[in-house]
Amino acid sequence: MKKITQSLFLFTILSCTSNAAVNDFCVADLKGPDSPSGYQCKPPNTVTVDDFVFSGLVAGNTTNTFNAALTSAFVTDFPGLNGLGVSAARLDIAKGGSIPMHTHPAATELLIVVEGQITAGFMTPSAVYSKTLKAGDVMVFPQGQLHFQVNSGNGKATAFLAFSSANPGAQLLDLLLFGNSLPSELIAQTTFLDVEQVKKLKARFGGRGIDYS
Amino acid sequence: MKKITQSLFLFTILSCTSNAAVNDFCVADLKGPDSPSGYQCKPPNTVTVDDFVFSGLVAGNTTNTFNAALTSAFVTDFPGLNGLGVSAARLDIAKGGSIPMHTHPAATELLIVVEGQITAGFMTPSAVYSKTLKAGDVMVFPQGQLHFQVNSGNGKATAFLAFSSANPGAQLLDLLLFGNSLPSELIAQTTFLDVEQVKKLKARFGGRGIDYS
Amino acid sequence: MKKITQSLFLFTILSCTSNAAVNDFCVADLKGPDSPSGYQCKPPNTVTVDDFVFSGLVAGNTTNTFNAALTSAFVTDFPGLNGLGVSAARLDIAKGGSIPMHTHPAATELLIVVEGQITAGFMTPSAVYSKTLKAGDVMVFPQGQLHFQVNSGNGKATAFLAFSSANPGAQLLDLLLFGNSLPSELIAQTTFLDVEQVKKLKARFGGRGIDYS
Amino acid sequence: MKKITQSLFLFTILSCTSNAAVNDFCVADLKGPDSPSGYQCKPPNTVTVDDFVFSGLVAGNTTNTFNAALTSAFVTDFPGLNGLGVSAARLDIAKGGSIPMHTHPAATELLIVVEGQITAGFMTPSAVYSKTLKAGDVMVFPQGQLHFQVNSGNGKATAFLAFSSANPGAQLLDLLLFGNSLPSELIAQTTFLDVEQVKKLKARFGGRGIDYS
Amino acid sequence: MKKITQSLFLFTILSCTSNAAVNDFCVADLKGPDSPSGYQCKPPNTVTVDDFVFSGLVAGNTTNTFNAALTSAFVTDFPGLNGLGVSAARLDIAKGGSIPMHTHPAATELLIVVEGQITAGFMTPSAVYSKTLKAGDVMVFPQGQLHFQVNSGNGKATAFLAFSSANPGAQLLDLLLFGNSLPSELIAQTTFLDVEQVKKLKARFGGRGIDYS
Amino acid sequence: MKKITQSLFLFTILSCTSNAAVNDFCVADLKGPDSPSGYQCKPPNTVTVDDFVFSGLVAGNTTNTFNAALTSAFVTDFPGLNGLGVSAARLDIAKGGSIPMHTHPAATELLIVVEGQITAGFMTPSAVYSKTLKAGDVMVFPQGQLHFQVNSGNGKATAFLAFSSANPGAQLLDLLLFGNSLPSELIAQTTFLDVEQVKKLKARFGGRGIDYS
Repeated sequence: MKKITQSLFLFTILSCTSNAAVNDFCVADLKGPDSPSGYQCKPPNTVTVDDFVFSGLVAGNTTNTFNAALTSAFVTDFPGLNGLGVSAARLDIAKGGSIPMHTHPAATELLIVVEGQITAGFMTPSAVYSKTLKAGDVMVFPQGQLHFQVNSGNGKATAFLAFSSANPGAQLLDLLLFGNSLPSELIAQTTFLDVEQVKKLKARFGGRGIDYS
Repeated sequence: MKKITQSLFLFTILSCTSNAAVNDFCVADLKGPDSPSGYQCKPPNTVTVDDFVFSGLVAGNTTNTFNAALTSAFVTDFPGLNGLGVSAARLDIAKGGSIPMHTHPAATELLIVVEGQITAGFMTPSAVYSKTLKAGDVMVFPQGQLHFQVNSGNGKATAFLAFSSANPGAQLLDLLLFGNSLPSELIAQTTFLDVEQVKKLKARFGGRGIDYS
Repeated sequence: MKKITQSLFLFTILSCTSNAAVNDFCVADLKGPDSPSGYQCKPPNTVTVDDFVFSGLVAGNTTNTFNAALTSAFVTDFPGLNGLGVSAARLDIAKGGSIPMHTHPAATELLIVVEGQITAGFMTPSAVYSKTLKAGDVMVFPQGQLHFQVNSGNGKATAFLAFSSANPGAQLLDLLLFGNSLPSELIAQTTFLDVEQVKKLKARFGGRGIDYS
Repeated sequence: MKKITQSLFLFTILSCTSNAAVNDFCVADLKGPDSPSGYQCKPPNTVTVDDFVFSGLVAGNTTNTFNAALTSAFVTDFPGLNGLGVSAARLDIAKGGSIPMHTHPAATELLIVVEGQITAGFMTPSAVYSKTLKAGDVMVFPQGQLHFQVNSGNGKATAFLAFSSANPGAQLLDLLLFGNSLPSELIAQTTFLDVEQVKKLKARFGGRGIDYS
Repeated sequence: MKKITQSLFLFTILSCTSNAAVNDFCVADLKGPDSPSGYQCKPPNTVTVDDFVFSGLVAGNTTNTFNAALTSAFVTDFPGLNGLGVSAARLDIAKGGSIPMHTHPAATELLIVVEGQITAGFMTPSAVYSKTLKAGDVMVFPQGQLHFQVNSGNGKATAFLAFSSANPGAQLLDLLLFGNSLPSELIAQTTFLDVEQVKKLKARFGGRGIDYS
Repeated sequence: MKKITQSLFLFTILSCTSNAAVNDFCVADLKGPDSPSGYQCKPPNTVTVDDFVFSGLVAGNTTNTFNAALTSAFVTDFPGLNGLGVSAARLDIAKGGSIPMHTHPAATELLIVVEGQITAGFMTPSAVYSKTLKAGDVMVFPQGQLHFQVNSGNGKATAFLAFSSANPGAQLLDLLLFGNSLPSELIAQTTFLDVEQVKKLKARFGGRGIDYS
């Protein structure tokens, strides 16, 4: 009897809580459209713990031209991150490898070194902030700053990355300049690189030199 | 004649104003999906004054186990709040009743006492901020803090609540710990409560003790 | 013995919690400067429950030209609101009185009617959203919209207001147009009011007509 | 061979970059619904440079009752602005013309004078901030403040405007008060204007006086 | 000669860049006051790479009552995080240990398991989201949700944490309820725990039961 | 008599409005420290119209190595912008000149062409968004994207810029890579440029190649 009254009361509370559930988290419906604040929310009753768990933040394959691999746990991999302003990745760099100059246009990066030695840094027009990091060191790269990570040790290096966005972009400078159809002369004019250097890197990064009008 | 020129001019202004209307407010289309920033906007030409008005923020029924009632005016009750970062509720607590320990995970609460006497407070690990409030007193509970409200007077107590979110969650601690399927042993391990105490409250709040693996 | 170990452990947790205290709330040091995000924080160890409680949200004196009074509980009255994006006020309107046309440039307003009858509304260039409200009705006025509240009943009217800012501005249209030194001719030119009307209201609201160059 | 390995690597990077593309910008799908954070994003593979370019921020027709024209480049004109918090407009004011008192409820305006002389200002209840501006002068009108721009020179005046919103509203005070169906008596009561003045301006701005209940 | 002209030009660019430096990052002056947006910025010319690097995110001492340790890299440890909305920590849990029920009132937590087995979860009033995680698994705990982490394996467990705040609070439920001066009767009334249970845990967590008025 | 009552009433309203003044705008005290949300506010009673007006957004001197000049109206030039999220600049590019590749790490840029012909664009790893613009064209460069502007016409080119920040950074790629003390070998390793090319540009942009450890 009393039990029934209570259940009714709990139902009242739960009804305002189920609104809350929509609001306290918003698991991405990745089949729907994105928006400036993120993806639409899945209906709360379809959310499961697996929306909040990502498996596979493990060593990537570093047998490539950079001897490095980036494994991501972003909202498109992991819908529970939607709207929460944080994501993660794992960085593996073989001996002699590096993550070349790149930016995250809309996210700050935190680098947590767990194994090996990484020399990392970012630059402003007036200064370089660069340091050689070991296991247990953490470095922050503020949003939009051009930065790099080099394995400067004698073995492999491993790090975890955290980002201040559920869906950080990663833009390699070489791909921005040399990986697309920007004309070689225009690149040379706006970077002061020699045209020969530009063409050499376009050949490496797959860019096609075309004219524009 | 001049009237026509003017109308054309006004039309020009209105055309940029109708864009504004989409932006200056965004009434929720509650039949559509939610997103991290709120619901989609209803077409501006379908918006009426009733989207901006909620009726029924009146005394709730307090004949329940807590001798208290929370009546909400959140975005799901009141689509004009969408995207505006504010909502309201009414709190009625009968003599001897209380709103037990709870949190609003993503909203600050403002408590405006209008009748009776309420002892309210929130805690940090190092301090308690608790006070006995009378009509005309206002207390703020910062976002995410565990807090409570007790009718400490000789009659009923009434208050209005404002929240810094259009859709604040309300999570009663007893429902979080004892109202769901979290195993009793795990609750005991992570709260240091005695298992008997946990089982007693699970029986009261409807939780079913199951094993996990 | 065990107790000591535990205390050390608690100290560790508390040390990270005391950081949290700085962050989970930031009580305004009203003697210090303001900033775009609010006032500087008082040192956490000087914060008391009275920083989170405001007393005196009671009936204001309505014996004035508008037969109305606004009593505020904003951050400058109530330092615990600092940085939390919400504040409150009480509105008392005697029979026949009103709060004339006004805006809150950077805050949404929620009006909770508790006694009497209030006709309230806001306008866009293409529509009026106006309604007559009774006790238990709530109306929202989106940020920056020109709005009004009139006591349209036979007795006094009382309401509580919540704002989506810790420090909302309140700008009465008559004071903006007629309460300052804006030249009458310029007001007339930019409002299409007759100069005589402008001068009549400047006399009422204390504005001094001066020339500009 | 090595080329293939590299392509695979680039593909890996690009896959996380294509997520980024969704996030680093979100071009509006103007056929879809709006939300508090803006429109849904077009699929990245359908985005072209024309989404990021608006053509036609040129002189508007000033042969109207205000001798002025506002030409806008807002998100509804220019989908690449979606979610980026900035937009532009061009202002042309013929000799003797003006942009009457108006507000942008949710945007700050920056006025860049390029030709002629403009007297512009905004008011608070306690002060007027007004100045006569020439080419090369820039003035800022903080969000939600009532402001005006008058051509106070001997020829035409031209300015560019920037707004802190992709979709700023523009609300002319005369249209808010006199352009809609707000009853004349209510306008008079809430502005202290004479009813005759109200009716005269309703006739000019097209408002229809009706009763309310 | 040409060099000089160029230097002058670079100086012009640098002057606007040095403004940028203030804005692109704002390294905390931890000796100054905090604010709702974070600490004041150190003068850019006093910033060094060490402001962006934290050393010591290593295994904490788990010989305590919880057999667990949390090592933090928050803004108060690491001033370069100021204003960037992200921070990190390391979690070490010995066999049989756990991080008991706790909340971060204003931050989302990301848990990256690097060694061992951790059973973690959070609850809403209507659901439990709990899972047993292994190395390479990542779980997200949305802002303000009550959650726990238990070492459910046969050896020690290690994880890195990322937070969506530069200064996340960490509030252990037992310290909130039992570690301070909240009266036992009030705790019992607002949690439905038996008074004996409350007193037993107050004795363990150091709370002093006092009366209030 | 009635006048006095009214003045008292106006005083009441003004008192809450003067709070608003602190909040509706916050003019920078440029002698004080900056914070993540901007500078401290000047006392409202010391604010004048000149805080809201910047003079001198005029043609800059283009006789330099880039044949271009950027004239800024940022918060450090113009304290009224503080906290308002918008700023402006003027761009002058002589025939044959350009603004080389650069980023604004924390601001979106809007380019309004007023004279001449400018070829502008930004790149992602997978696409180039580039177009030749004429007077009346507006182009948006989303936050943090690498972009360029080239005078591709037969005469000088002039444009106004608006930014979604009161204090946008401007980082020229050549200064980031070649203008500071980053070692040539490290630049070569992280950009794939030839070391000779790096040294040639360091000589031009003033960078000093040093070793690091």
